Amino acid sequence: MSYARQILDTYPASTGADAGVLAATIDALSDCAQACSTDVDADLSEQNVAEMVACIRLCLECTDVCTATIGVISRPAARDASVTRPLLEACVASCRSCGDECERHADMHEHCRVCAEACRRCERACRELLAALK
Amino acid sequence: MSYARQILDTYPASTGADAGVLAATIDALSDCAQACSTDVDADLSEQNVAEMVACIRLCLECTDVCTATIGVISRPAARDASVTRPLLEACVASCRSCGDECERHADMHEHCRVCAEACRRCERACRELLAALK
Amino acid sequence: MSYARQILDTYPASTGADAGVLAATIDALSDCAQACSTDVDADLSEQNVAEMVACIRLCLECTDVCTATIGVISRPAARDASVTRPLLEACVASCRSCGDECERHADMHEHCRVCAEACRRCERACRELLAALK
Amino acid sequence: MSYARQILDTYPASTGADAGVLAATIDALSDCAQACSTDVDADLSEQNVAEMVACIRLCLECTDVCTATIGVISRPAARDASVTRPLLEACVASCRSCGDECERHADMHEHCRVCAEACRRCERACRELLAALK
Repeated sequence: MSYARQILDTYPASTGADAGVLAATIDALSDCAQACSTDVDADLSEQNVAEMVACIRLCLECTDVCTATIGVISRPAARDASVTRPLLEACVASCRSCGDECERHADMHEHCRVCAEACRRCERACRELLAALK
Repeated sequence: MSYARQILDTYPASTGADAGVLAATIDALSDCAQACSTDVDADLSEQNVAEMVACIRLCLECTDVCTATIGVISRPAARDASVTRPLLEACVASCRSCGDECERHADMHEHCRVCAEACRRCERACRELLAALK
Repeated sequence: MSYARQILDTYPASTGADAGVLAATIDALSDCAQACSTDVDADLSEQNVAEMVACIRLCLECTDVCTATIGVISRPAARDASVTRPLLEACVASCRSCGDECERHADMHEHCRVCAEACRRCERACRELLAALK
Repeated sequence: MSYARQILDTYPASTGADAGVLAATIDALSDCAQACSTDVDADLSEQNVAEMVACIRLCLECTDVCTATIGVISRPAARDASVTRPLLEACVASCRSCGDECERHADMHEHCRVCAEACRRCERACRELLAALK
């Protein structure tokens, strides 16, 4: 069981959403933020770095948005739909753009293939949390 | 002239929005993120900390959302409206909620009065940038 | 296998340290940052919030330091010992202080027990990475 | 007067260091984090992006370390020398490396000249705070 799930299970008040969905989203966001950080560095190590510029930019954006979202959804009591919804929507959009771009390089660069997977999984998790919060 | 403005003025490509509006938003976001961090710590130093819980939570959320937004809008070439718009909307909502709550404590706690001001200014700046990006 | 490990295994250049140690540290840092964020919110939900102030502060600090460390060690090519070493030392110190304080509340608050565990594991992982980087 | 100074001046407990020095450091860190974010994006817009790889990596590292340091020193009551000192040392080292690399490109790229200035000012501010905390 992930730490995210373990600590949410001990939360002294209502988490306002299924703890399993919440924990799965936090884990997917953490993986995605980290995969994107490493993918930036891997892209910068490639010979064809000039062709990786869009990928680097989208990975940087995705890291920033995922990191903020981890903080916000890790504090369930503070949940304010007027903030959480657009933030999750920004996350969905960022994961989708970044996943699309990473996929374009997946055949050539294995690290982009893994990063695309992390983005897809995170996009799905954020959509599920959005649906669960309705 | 702020560093945000100075460095945007040397940007080698189009910044996609008026550099003055962009720089003013970055400065307002930096001030707001920092004011909220300090306000959390100041709230925790107050005797009536139990009454400051909502304020602490909203300030933590506001710091996270503003920090991500600084990163995203500081990279103008990466601008993707499907991410930037909901992120700025999350920021507007977070600054408004946090500013409202801080204002409730402004008479009693000077630090909340200053933090409310930083939130109001940041909310306005994000709205102006949203309008400019249309 | 964690995403951290998967993506490091596809890294196109040397990661400068054993990929297993690096990935374990990244996972421990992500868990710790998230556990600390949730523990802050859980502490704020407790009736005896005035007694949780030190715990809240140390958890906030630990989140900030772990988040920066994830970014820095996720980009292996950029490794600069003059930055990585003191940053990991700050992380060890922050996890230790936070783990000690959480442990003090572990009997009373289950969330603090889980957070203390995440801090201990992260402290150990950072020490191992420091040793591996020597 | 900066917001950092304004809010520190209303802090209800001791800030453990001269509020002017503390506020100047926070402002220098905010400027540096933002200049480095923008410089990454500007570097990625240059034709000779392959020659800017080291600069991009150092700017990313500097942004992460400065952002964590803003959080930690913005909460003066939480000050724990065993964390703050190595974190400020990591910041000094990161600003120095990043400033040196940016300076190498200053003649060719105006944005690197401005970013080098922000790094130098931040390095000096962190050194002064380290001296003040002794």
